[in-house]
Amino acid sequence: MRQSLKATHLLASSLLALGLAYSLPATAVEGMFTPDQLPEIAKDLRKKGLKMKPEQISDLTGFPMGAVVSLGGCSASFVSPQGLVVTNHHCAYGSIQYNSTEENNYLEEGFLAANFEAELPAAPGSRVYVTVDVDDVTADITGGLSDTLVGESRYAAIDSARKSIVAECEEDEGHRCNVASFYGGLQYKLIKSLEIKDVRLVYAPAGPIGKFGGDIDNWMWPRHTGDFSFYRAYVSPDGESADYSEDNVPFTPAHTLKVSAAGLDDGDFVMVAGYPGRTSRYTRLAEVENTFSWRYPTDETRMRNWIAAIEGASEPGSDARIKYESRLAGINNYMKNLGGQMEGARRVGLVERRAEREAALNAWIAAEAPDAGYAEALVALDALSAERAQEQRSSYWYNNATRPQLLGVAQRLYRLSHEQLKDNVDRESGYQDRDMGRMKQSMTAMDRRYDAAVDKAEWMMFLRGYLAQPKSGRVAELDMAMGLTDDMSDAALSATLDRYYASTVLGNLDTRLSLMDATPDELKASADPFMRLAVALYDYVRQQEAASKDRAGRLAMLQPKYMEAIIAWQKDQGFTAYPDANSTLRVTYGNVMGGSPRDGMRYDPFTTLEGITAKETGEDPFNSPQSQLDLIATQDYGRYALDSIGSVPVNFLTDLDSTGGNSGSATLNARGELVGLLFDGTIESVNSDWDFDPRTVRSIHVDSRYMLWVMEKVDNADRLLEEMDIVNARGR
Amino acid sequence: MRQSLKATHLLASSLLALGLAYSLPATAVEGMFTPDQLPEIAKDLRKKGLKMKPEQISDLTGFPMGAVVSLGGCSASFVSPQGLVVTNHHCAYGSIQYNSTEENNYLEEGFLAANFEAELPAAPGSRVYVTVDVDDVTADITGGLSDTLVGESRYAAIDSARKSIVAECEEDEGHRCNVASFYGGLQYKLIKSLEIKDVRLVYAPAGPIGKFGGDIDNWMWPRHTGDFSFYRAYVSPDGESADYSEDNVPFTPAHTLKVSAAGLDDGDFVMVAGYPGRTSRYTRLAEVENTFSWRYPTDETRMRNWIAAIEGASEPGSDARIKYESRLAGINNYMKNLGGQMEGARRVGLVERRAEREAALNAWIAAEAPDAGYAEALVALDALSAERAQEQRSSYWYNNATRPQLLGVAQRLYRLSHEQLKDNVDRESGYQDRDMGRMKQSMTAMDRRYDAAVDKAEWMMFLRGYLAQPKSGRVAELDMAMGLTDDMSDAALSATLDRYYASTVLGNLDTRLSLMDATPDELKASADPFMRLAVALYDYVRQQEAASKDRAGRLAMLQPKYMEAIIAWQKDQGFTAYPDANSTLRVTYGNVMGGSPRDGMRYDPFTTLEGITAKETGEDPFNSPQSQLDLIATQDYGRYALDSIGSVPVNFLTDLDSTGGNSGSATLNARGELVGLLFDGTIESVNSDWDFDPRTVRSIHVDSRYMLWVMEKVDNADRLLEEMDIVNARGR
Repeated sequence: MRQSLKATHLLASSLLALGLAYSLPATAVEGMFTPDQLPEIAKDLRKKGLKMKPEQISDLTGFPMGAVVSLGGCSASFVSPQGLVVTNHHCAYGSIQYNSTEENNYLEEGFLAANFEAELPAAPGSRVYVTVDVDDVTADITGGLSDTLVGESRYAAIDSARKSIVAECEEDEGHRCNVASFYGGLQYKLIKSLEIKDVRLVYAPAGPIGKFGGDIDNWMWPRHTGDFSFYRAYVSPDGESADYSEDNVPFTPAHTLKVSAAGLDDGDFVMVAGYPGRTSRYTRLAEVENTFSWRYPTDETRMRNWIAAIEGASEPGSDARIKYESRLAGINNYMKNLGGQMEGARRVGLVERRAEREAALNAWIAAEAPDAGYAEALVALDALSAERAQEQRSSYWYNNATRPQLLGVAQRLYRLSHEQLKDNVDRESGYQDRDMGRMKQSMTAMDRRYDAAVDKAEWMMFLRGYLAQPKSGRVAELDMAMGLTDDMSDAALSATLDRYYASTVLGNLDTRLSLMDATPDELKASADPFMRLAVALYDYVRQQEAASKDRAGRLAMLQPKYMEAIIAWQKDQGFTAYPDANSTLRVTYGNVMGGSPRDGMRYDPFTTLEGITAKETGEDPFNSPQSQLDLIATQDYGRYALDSIGSVPVNFLTDLDSTGGNSGSATLNARGELVGLLFDGTIESVNSDWDFDPRTVRSIHVDSRYMLWVMEKVDNADRLLEEMDIVNARGR
Repeated sequence: MRQSLKATHLLASSLLALGLAYSLPATAVEGMFTPDQLPEIAKDLRKKGLKMKPEQISDLTGFPMGAVVSLGGCSASFVSPQGLVVTNHHCAYGSIQYNSTEENNYLEEGFLAANFEAELPAAPGSRVYVTVDVDDVTADITGGLSDTLVGESRYAAIDSARKSIVAECEEDEGHRCNVASFYGGLQYKLIKSLEIKDVRLVYAPAGPIGKFGGDIDNWMWPRHTGDFSFYRAYVSPDGESADYSEDNVPFTPAHTLKVSAAGLDDGDFVMVAGYPGRTSRYTRLAEVENTFSWRYPTDETRMRNWIAAIEGASEPGSDARIKYESRLAGINNYMKNLGGQMEGARRVGLVERRAEREAALNAWIAAEAPDAGYAEALVALDALSAERAQEQRSSYWYNNATRPQLLGVAQRLYRLSHEQLKDNVDRESGYQDRDMGRMKQSMTAMDRRYDAAVDKAEWMMFLRGYLAQPKSGRVAELDMAMGLTDDMSDAALSATLDRYYASTVLGNLDTRLSLMDATPDELKASADPFMRLAVALYDYVRQQEAASKDRAGRLAMLQPKYMEAIIAWQKDQGFTAYPDANSTLRVTYGNVMGGSPRDGMRYDPFTTLEGITAKETGEDPFNSPQSQLDLIATQDYGRYALDSIGSVPVNFLTDLDSTGGNSGSATLNARGELVGLLFDGTIESVNSDWDFDPRTVRSIHVDSRYMLWVMEKVDNADRLLEEMDIVNARGR
């Protein structure tokens, strides 16, 4: 679910502008606003029910934003002055798994540290990022660029400026910096975060609570998942970021969230602060069409074949299969998501709507801003979109045919050997000193995810696709190096691949790590078949990359102009345009709200404890702990019941705008108290990354009352309950 | 969907009696009452909203019951004085298919006869049964039986009495009679029906309307299926039942239903008159446990293997596959139903509830009727239930291993040769003169449903199960005749079967038909391998049958006593017990009502035209005619819109009690006007055959307004609209 979470938007305003009427009121609230935009939309925020000053939420180092953190891929928040962090169970899953053994199966049984000493190191690479500063650096990046600087040169100039700014920022040790692009490069912001490296697992409920419903309920409503877990952030005794050490102490955040035991009722205001990953709300029609008419359907078929290849090469329960379970789950999740996206696109008429929107924008430009250069930029942008779509198609099978894990390793190592010849600041992103920790970790992690027989089955499948495509998609370098021919039989292909796996040494971890220091010449002399293939493809890869940078450079000229037009057009109609999601901190808001996803049925806004019992089968993923079922049977609700539903609410729906990366986000009430955690969106919402349909977009949250009820009644997590500031007044 | 339709009940009254509380009010109305019971429940009928006198509905030859007919497996009703019959599209499906050709694909395009002459003969064997008389014949059947007459002798005495009564009744030519058992043999009724044999297809909407949603939406809500079609009943010029003839004339029914253009709104009273097939509401715990813990799970696995066997032996689109499409659909439908039943049993706690009910009955007997002999009868009945359960298990694989179609043909022919030596009235049911027409038809129809390679694949699969079971399930006669051994390889088994298919002559239709006149000695001398197998198994089959009749005879002593206790117990608490469904005319009633099938979601009571457009994909089964989509787009609702939903209602839900066989039943409003046709139940209802859960049982109906809208706007069926008596006042 993480990273594929979901929920995004169309320009609701353009709907109104175009006079497109829906039979139902367009209630859901579109917009993933940057905190500094909130004062602009203050009126609507107050109308929906916010009780705080929007300016207060804009202050990233104040309350409540100072309590909101990123885990990299997930969102989280501080809920105690001793650095206690709450996020989703599925966001802490890797760490729970990492610490699980046959004797102590925390994934199954859950984990609760009895005291600070018993808190366990999170999985390698786990981080808590606390934003400490955000600066507009647009002028430093593009301010000095002449319009005549185009293509790859423009790309290089921007890239170089970004790297310098990051490097300078990261001179402050213990911090991670990045320059994020907003509105397609119209605006750049430097975001500086404290990088907390000593992260420890504090509490996770039993798997059958934290993952209740599993893949079956993924993207689904009604939902009954206790998707919460707790980390703690540790720093050195002097408060600095530090690697794990026994001497480290809990981090003291500047701000923390109060946790509400009173929760919400139907219609109440909610807002969510988190790090949504990526949306495509402003993507041009050419790319939308290419995605939905070609890429997604092609991907769906490829995914089906991919599953068959993995399953065909690994017996259920075998070591090989276990190594690929996570990939299989990812592919299945993606397929379910693709299905939802295509169904959603069909339902809303995505292509037609995008065409209408572009026509409306064109009309506005012609009437209101004929001399701003927008029209010309759009023509060029659409040509570029078409070019990119064409490139996607022609490189699709080549890109897949070069997917085997050991080839990837060889390519990265060979590239690294070249990059290491340069000064650090001139190296390609991903190959700088700051990236070496992650690369080592990925080289290491491969051992847990690689099996030669499965890798070969995958490669066979991709190469069959590569050979079956129109000849224009073939790459001479690959054909030559591997001896691929048009009429090659499966047997011949298989024999070819067998030779790769028989003589490679890259399957060995020490070899992989030692080769991180090799020179190009050393690798060029290697007899390893995957390394030889990497060397043979190197020039072609560089050409591909140069072409891609050239397109990126041209896009960097055109996209800002397009977004400038969008912003002006929206403003002209009284709307505030917001940038597509880019993994930076955003605020979205709305209300607790059920839905009408399809004609003839409705979603209630809340699910109840009794719904858990109703789903119970005793088998994974519907196998609650007996103690929980007993508590439900006796209606032992404690102080957590919601009168309007006569039970403890488990999960709830809101109409706010979210997507992958929002997982773990604090759901806040009108006073900024934590009333839940966002963890998913409904299947009817997944297309909202492209087109926000206010009738159907619903985000799914775990209710703070259920979280507290489990902590108090099921798991006796008194230590944490005492540590948190739990408030009981309804905050509407 | 036919015959597997669904929806049935638990004793709602026992729920109350036991004080079992549900958190929601138990609103759905349990009970498939015989028409003569209606005066007993008059108070509740009036409370729910009936505007007619219950006595009027009890009169089977009066209005409205005189308009209600059976098609054998489906229900239907007269809607014009010229014998026009309305039923479900899926009930007329065989006739539409039978008349379809590549040029005139009525299944796809629909069919509308321009005039009487253009009406097409329905599929062979199609019948309209009009009930003309119902008599209680209990005294004639069991009145003279001594309690000492037990086992097979008791069975024989009852069977013989039933046959004589039927034979006497059918002396009135053109009529079909049967003696139906109610309350497990506590009561017997002779039902005499006019058998109309000249049935013609008048009108069916296009398949994408009549079957919209297909197997995907089967058992599902929300639903948008136009599941209606029209037949016409023809008789000889002098009004007698007659085979098809050009000289025949439309039948004049004694009563017809008015068709409502005003329809219903949420909460309105509805009743349904139809022929529900079979329920198991009074089945004893031993059999319930056996069914849900062993038979259904075992069947589910067997069905999965069965599908694999058929699909493995027939390429998609091949002639062989086409012959088995209907069987595949049936298996898939059964599997979906099984899944729903098992899920429902789990949800309501069927086994525990049945145990509680039996305990409550025992307590009542001990307190109120200790000397009625009930307690002793129940002990014996439970022992018999356990014995039957055991027998089911031990004969399961033998019964499957003797499933091949040609073996079935051989067994029926050989049995027939023996039966024909007896007087007609003494022959086994199914082998009397009155059955010969149907047997010929089934011998003929086999050509359209048989493929040797598929038949063999099925047989292999069943024999593998037979050989893999515990040895106690093996039958020496079968092992001997086929040469089956414990360690038989698949190859050896396959070679054995090949010999059967290589030399049989029963694949030839003429041979099959000619052998219907053969003597036992002639068949004993046959060299046909299937006939030799039938001969070899004959004695064993007779033993099986004798044992089964013995159990049936014992049951015929005990079950009436059990039902007598149930009726007295219910009456003592102010409830009217109703008999399990047995394909006889029943009345059920309730209200238009949405539902809450699961925690966190709801069903609306109506679906709308716009919901059709929302489901539209352009591909089967969601490919509406463009003309219909255009009419919806322009909101051309005519006089058929329902204000409360702002559109024409397509399907609606009610809380009334129904099951397979109710398909095609007239749904009547409080004044007895036709407001729809029942055609399905929700997946959450399928377990109601065992246990009526008032929270979840919902029947699905096609709305008369949608039917009339399609007839008027899409298909211009003016001739039929003029022929029917369409009324426009709301009949609540």
